[in-house]
Amino acid sequence: MGAMTPPAADLNSRVIQLNAEYARALDDGNFEAWPEFFLEDGLYKLTTADNHAQGMEAGVIYADSRNMMRDRVSALRVANIYERQRYRHIVGMPLVPAEEGGTLGSEAAFIVVRIMRDGTMEVFATGRYLDRVEEDAEGRLRFRERIVVCDSNRFDTLVAIPL
Amino acid sequence: MGAMTPPAADLNSRVIQLNAEYARALDDGNFEAWPEFFLEDGLYKLTTADNHAQGMEAGVIYADSRNMMRDRVSALRVANIYERQRYRHIVGMPLVPAEEGGTLGSEAAFIVVRIMRDGTMEVFATGRYLDRVEEDAEGRLRFRERIVVCDSNRFDTLVAIPL
Amino acid sequence: MGAMTPPAADLNSRVIQLNAEYARALDDGNFEAWPEFFLEDGLYKLTTADNHAQGMEAGVIYADSRNMMRDRVSALRVANIYERQRYRHIVGMPLVPAEEGGTLGSEAAFIVVRIMRDGTMEVFATGRYLDRVEEDAEGRLRFRERIVVCDSNRFDTLVAIPL
Repeated sequence: MGAMTPPAADLNSRVIQLNAEYARALDDGNFEAWPEFFLEDGLYKLTTADNHAQGMEAGVIYADSRNMMRDRVSALRVANIYERQRYRHIVGMPLVPAEEGGTLGSEAAFIVVRIMRDGTMEVFATGRYLDRVEEDAEGRLRFRERIVVCDSNRFDTLVAIPL
Repeated sequence: MGAMTPPAADLNSRVIQLNAEYARALDDGNFEAWPEFFLEDGLYKLTTADNHAQGMEAGVIYADSRNMMRDRVSALRVANIYERQRYRHIVGMPLVPAEEGGTLGSEAAFIVVRIMRDGTMEVFATGRYLDRVEEDAEGRLRFRERIVVCDSNRFDTLVAIPL
Repeated sequence: MGAMTPPAADLNSRVIQLNAEYARALDDGNFEAWPEFFLEDGLYKLTTADNHAQGMEAGVIYADSRNMMRDRVSALRVANIYERQRYRHIVGMPLVPAEEGGTLGSEAAFIVVRIMRDGTMEVFATGRYLDRVEEDAEGRLRFRERIVVCDSNRFDTLVAIPL
């Protein structure tokens, strides 16, 4: 199969791949993999569009290291909430504007559908990822920062899974 | 227009293209084109995430050749069900991990919205495509296997269109 | 960071980028940027799948120059309707079939979710973009024509924002 050469691993493709793998891990319920998408001292913040526009630093969810993220996942596993429903992310094409001092900015729209145990489906969240991406020592792309800006101001307070 | 050179036809792009063409054919109601996306002895299976996780082989819909798929399309045309509504697929970026013996694995998330004749829209299905893709004798990419794993366990039994 | 070379700017990637930037501008409420995605005498038309299939020329929204689009945006700003809700576009992979006389055809599926001030979210529109894309004198890709074919025949008449 001569024509089936390996896909080109340009930077754009790698950012797309990173987004797709992140979404898959969450939708598979593989939360333990979630902190690994970040640098050791990476930042994850989930906030609302209104808060973000007003420059408010506080997020609905905030973790500034892999360890904090791991704690969060452990709490999730104990609470056992996540098993009641499924989620499905669809992520739009990332806009990868420019590298700046070894960090790459990236932005992508997303929609998350929630699927309840009874089969009903609804739009659960929409928004955009504002990312800063870097290569770690092994050359793997990871998030220096992922800010999840949700369009809606209403959150189902029972749900604490990462988006 | 010197800068408008033809797009690079690397393998990743071709898998993306295959996914986009498949979705368009279905959303256009061009079901007759559907079997052509598969190899002659290709497999199409639609199943649920729960069934898939339990390793159950049986699917909600199952066809292991183009001929079976054509029969299915003929039955659809007779039943005439498909005309009452439209569907719109949005497919996420495919994850194309690795080639294995001339077959390429690929996975992509999807969401399908159903649009009723009265204009109402709802999330109809979400899930992921688990694909094995090969080149046929003419070098065109086709599905050796497309397993549609739906997140929800509930199916509108009246709807028998392929997803 | 030697591996982080700039992304390849092939034509496919540029069409993807154009789609992503267009969606972002609208979802950011940056309507003033909207006409700039078109050539000076570009065409924007929003129509329904039924009308489009019947070859009807008239659209629900029609503008055949940047100036008409600017007028439309001014009217929107006066009406002030747009502030009551947010929108989120997710655009599927564009199918970029072939260049024809310096113009590139492109087609992409989309879904738009509307987020109300009270936090409720719903599928607002689905459909596909039928585009003809050209480079302007500066080599930037712009729409010669963007026809928005909505799947549903029902429109919220209060909403006049571009899709």
